[in-house]
Amino acid sequence: MRVSDRSAALVLCSGGQDSTTCLRWAANRWQEVYSVAFDYGQRHRVELDAAHTVASMVGVVEHRVIPVEALKLLAGNSLTGDTAVGNVLEADNGLPNTFVPGRNLMFFTLAAAWAYQLKVSHLVTGVCQTDYSGYPDCRQQTVQAMTMALRTGMDYGFTIHTPLMHLTKAQSVQLAQEEQALELLAYSHTCYNGSVPPCGTCPACKLRERGFREAGIADPLLQRLASEGTV
Amino acid sequence: MRVSDRSAALVLCSGGQDSTTCLRWAANRWQEVYSVAFDYGQRHRVELDAAHTVASMVGVVEHRVIPVEALKLLAGNSLTGDTAVGNVLEADNGLPNTFVPGRNLMFFTLAAAWAYQLKVSHLVTGVCQTDYSGYPDCRQQTVQAMTMALRTGMDYGFTIHTPLMHLTKAQSVQLAQEEQALELLAYSHTCYNGSVPPCGTCPACKLRERGFREAGIADPLLQRLASEGTV
Repeated sequence: MRVSDRSAALVLCSGGQDSTTCLRWAANRWQEVYSVAFDYGQRHRVELDAAHTVASMVGVVEHRVIPVEALKLLAGNSLTGDTAVGNVLEADNGLPNTFVPGRNLMFFTLAAAWAYQLKVSHLVTGVCQTDYSGYPDCRQQTVQAMTMALRTGMDYGFTIHTPLMHLTKAQSVQLAQEEQALELLAYSHTCYNGSVPPCGTCPACKLRERGFREAGIADPLLQRLASEGTV
Repeated sequence: MRVSDRSAALVLCSGGQDSTTCLRWAANRWQEVYSVAFDYGQRHRVELDAAHTVASMVGVVEHRVIPVEALKLLAGNSLTGDTAVGNVLEADNGLPNTFVPGRNLMFFTLAAAWAYQLKVSHLVTGVCQTDYSGYPDCRQQTVQAMTMALRTGMDYGFTIHTPLMHLTKAQSVQLAQEEQALELLAYSHTCYNGSVPPCGTCPACKLRERGFREAGIADPLLQRLASEGTV
């Protein structure tokens, strides 16, 4: 199986807290970093702007936004539809109503397709099993299975790096501090409702708030907004 | 892991010879059949019309065309670009220049995402390792890996059926006859150049011609076109 010898990585960067941390983590380890975000009609589209901002701050070689029209058509749920966002579990499957089936599988595949063209074999993603909010596509087991599918399906020696997989949110915040990612996190976006300043009440906002609180570190996003007089 | 008890299957139907055979194969086995084709800017777009025609002939519950804009953007090759189609191998990887990286992985994921919504756990695809033209995403190994990725990624008990996986093209033609799929094959499309009547010289046309010839069965597409005075 072929593998690239370039010191280069492609980061799946949604502009959220976790992928932004991973973007800096990758920039600290590879000479060239590329980043990719996905436009699937998400309610919190402001995160696409955040992804662009943090990618620029890190100095990526190229940042792409890949449209995934298909997910918009397929997903009947609250991240892309009109349903209210909340801690609501679907009655028939016990998954959060923010679950978009196949979302991360699609993202991995598209990222790998671009990486294949770039001759980049390292992919980096912020998925996390610990705080995975009930999403089965954030599990270590899924990433392992997807790695095998990408390797055999493209005959290319991809590695998917998941630096946050087994960290709590507080540990992710600590890692962000160690990796000098806090300045980037001031421009990351988390709120599922797409609010700036963040709504503070959706599951994503609550998770972020708890992570910073437990780590004993102030959220640089709130500090920045406060300094700008936004909150 | 959840699994559906519906007698229903979703067929990945490009409108080509193999997936059309699989469409009939599925209709002979499940009470309800759905079909899906993908629009990724392929040069042979006439196959999308063929897929619609054969799906109607079989009486599927629903046929969908899912847009995969992203593949069009990512793929720098002869099926979607301006390069000539032929038996050309790329210099750096030994794969045919018709290889669209990640294409089938994407199709499996999108099909599974729709199947998940439909509560359908059986997917059927015409991929074939024997005549796979050098595409790594048509191998049994890839389908197995992808099945694991879909199962763990969506927490749903998908099965991917590949009735043609280990058949030669001639054996696929024989299977089509046994399954009463020949009448459908009269409306299937194979030519990579999108020609009607088929160009007869591209790799796909040659493979089809050889399959029917070795099976000792006349190609119903050519018979139909001849009866209509087209060839």
